Amino acid sequence: MNINGRPWRTIGLEEGGASVWVIDQTLLPHRFETRSLTSLEAAADAITTMVVRGAPLIGVTGAYGLMLALQVDPSDGSLEAAFERLNATRPTAVNLRWALERVRQRVAPLPEAERAAAARQEAGAIAEEDVAMCAAIGEHGLELFRTLAAARPAERQGQPLNVLTHCNAGWLATVDWGTALAPIYKAHRAGLPIHVWVDETRPRNQGASLTAFELGREGVPHTVIVDNAGGHLMQHGQVDAVIVGTDRTTRRGDVCNKIGTYLKALAAHDNGVPFYVALPASTIDWTLDDGVAEIPIEARSAREVTHIQGLLSPDQIGAVQLTPEDSTGFNPAFDVTPARLVTALITERGVAAASEAGLRGLYGR
Amino acid sequence: MNINGRPWRTIGLEEGGASVWVIDQTLLPHRFETRSLTSLEAAADAITTMVVRGAPLIGVTGAYGLMLALQVDPSDGSLEAAFERLNATRPTAVNLRWALERVRQRVAPLPEAERAAAARQEAGAIAEEDVAMCAAIGEHGLELFRTLAAARPAERQGQPLNVLTHCNAGWLATVDWGTALAPIYKAHRAGLPIHVWVDETRPRNQGASLTAFELGREGVPHTVIVDNAGGHLMQHGQVDAVIVGTDRTTRRGDVCNKIGTYLKALAAHDNGVPFYVALPASTIDWTLDDGVAEIPIEARSAREVTHIQGLLSPDQIGAVQLTPEDSTGFNPAFDVTPARLVTALITERGVAAASEAGLRGLYGR
Repeated sequence: MNINGRPWRTIGLEEGGASVWVIDQTLLPHRFETRSLTSLEAAADAITTMVVRGAPLIGVTGAYGLMLALQVDPSDGSLEAAFERLNATRPTAVNLRWALERVRQRVAPLPEAERAAAARQEAGAIAEEDVAMCAAIGEHGLELFRTLAAARPAERQGQPLNVLTHCNAGWLATVDWGTALAPIYKAHRAGLPIHVWVDETRPRNQGASLTAFELGREGVPHTVIVDNAGGHLMQHGQVDAVIVGTDRTTRRGDVCNKIGTYLKALAAHDNGVPFYVALPASTIDWTLDDGVAEIPIEARSAREVTHIQGLLSPDQIGAVQLTPEDSTGFNPAFDVTPARLVTALITERGVAAASEAGLRGLYGR
Repeated sequence: MNINGRPWRTIGLEEGGASVWVIDQTLLPHRFETRSLTSLEAAADAITTMVVRGAPLIGVTGAYGLMLALQVDPSDGSLEAAFERLNATRPTAVNLRWALERVRQRVAPLPEAERAAAARQEAGAIAEEDVAMCAAIGEHGLELFRTLAAARPAERQGQPLNVLTHCNAGWLATVDWGTALAPIYKAHRAGLPIHVWVDETRPRNQGASLTAFELGREGVPHTVIVDNAGGHLMQHGQVDAVIVGTDRTTRRGDVCNKIGTYLKALAAHDNGVPFYVALPASTIDWTLDDGVAEIPIEARSAREVTHIQGLLSPDQIGAVQLTPEDSTGFNPAFDVTPARLVTALITERGVAAASEAGLRGLYGR
């Protein structure tokens, strides 16, 4: 996507392929800086400290982390140690493990001298495939948006389509395009007038910081709202569709996404607003049946509830405490939206009902 | 209620009745300070700058504001000017206008020399009636809580009743006890084990600051959560009841309360969790039928979305910016929860169904 007219991705090679740059997402939206990752430790640290985040981007960063390790020491021992080091940064990130496995399987059979270059190639292929997958999600979602826009009453024709999104499932979470935001970017570039309601997404505020930042840089009209406001907007016809991403999808179409997604799905259902979930096949867990009962939900630090980060002054980012000194917080990071509340799943293979039949139809399993 | 073992109200007379003290709620939860209101202007300013907030407390502050004006100048002109000055501080606050009218009607027929003392007496009566009304709401709510606690399965008997609340409808919003929090205080003092999930309530965070503060000072076990978390907790049986206040209630039982209340009501309904609304009769607007269609919702400053206040350092309260420089926000302050999602209304006269029949049964209209 664009940042002030210049095309960017979230990660790329530099120094003739010897190292990797990433955008430091901990400083967004207040400061845009890239960071060079020149070693295995730098790559692992970037994942741990959330300089990079989003399952697809973490996977690609991990893959390049193996390359960085193999450039220094291409031995079997080095490969295994690097694999373990990177995999331990986010042990629950299925996509990270998948990307690391893929690079390891590619390089392990090769002579040591060829390993670093092969890792570079494989990591690059993972990145390109992710871009293509997100672009395909965008095209399928764009068709849905066109249909929605055309179905509006005559007096609303030509007005922007109002789409609400929660958290950040944009290009900053992937390599380019994003998942939930890909149809929005496709629509904007295709000239379909669109306006995005951006849920701030407490506690980490990925909406207010990352989604607002990336929509703004691409020039997509948007308005930030608190997470409490979406239901009211839907009651008053100000939302034409909701679109979100997913971290994990059950075979029956239950969706595990950022905490608060379920509340927006309930409001959409109550007001007849379509609720779409955009996902690549890699988020589908065919072993899971009932998402609410079966998916364990990580509780993150209570400090994310009791404190919040922002811009203190033009050149200083810092945190303020929101709660009384002696109050504690509880911080479940995700919730599960049952398939019955999901209008459709938008995947790289097309659009399907949020059901076992829908998903099997697309993926032939 | 108590602050660290000492009983407090939110407002009271000082200097032998010549002036009024209030708690400066803009500094909570980080600093507890009272402020003397010694003039009409000081009272008006306290309302405008939200040193005092909550419909009942604003009403009492306004009533005492008339007393402060009449102490200086008890003329008809002074009375009218003070009425207009105070009423203009929060023109949509029905309760403020009601309290001002009541004092005016009491003092207007009197000789000038008796007016200030009569205003003092009338303001005091309004305050005492509010305390009695809130205490009665508390008793009726306590009975509901006892029934809920007793109905739990054997293995949950004796465990705390988990109650979720949104915003601050506590003693800080009234003179004492509060509305939604009154049953919680009554339960805690009666020895019924209770634990409160406190929604932080963006954008102004009255939950994280005021509700957490007042529960903590009284010693009521509580945990602060982001507004996104309640649905997930309900899906997992961690909420036994939701209880909130209301700013305005239609004759059919629709409830206009802080933005985000509707989303919690949807989640409660979806999970079979009782959703209670606590209210004094003064919030009922018998002229209103359909709350969603008829109640205009105030949009407050977008700055409440883009910035947030908190504790910067042990001795400094300040604000941080959350959004990109060029992103805008939209900030509807309230939403309407349809009566169909409300399990029961808890009033000073008892508990009723959220319906026209329920309300007329209690109030005999």
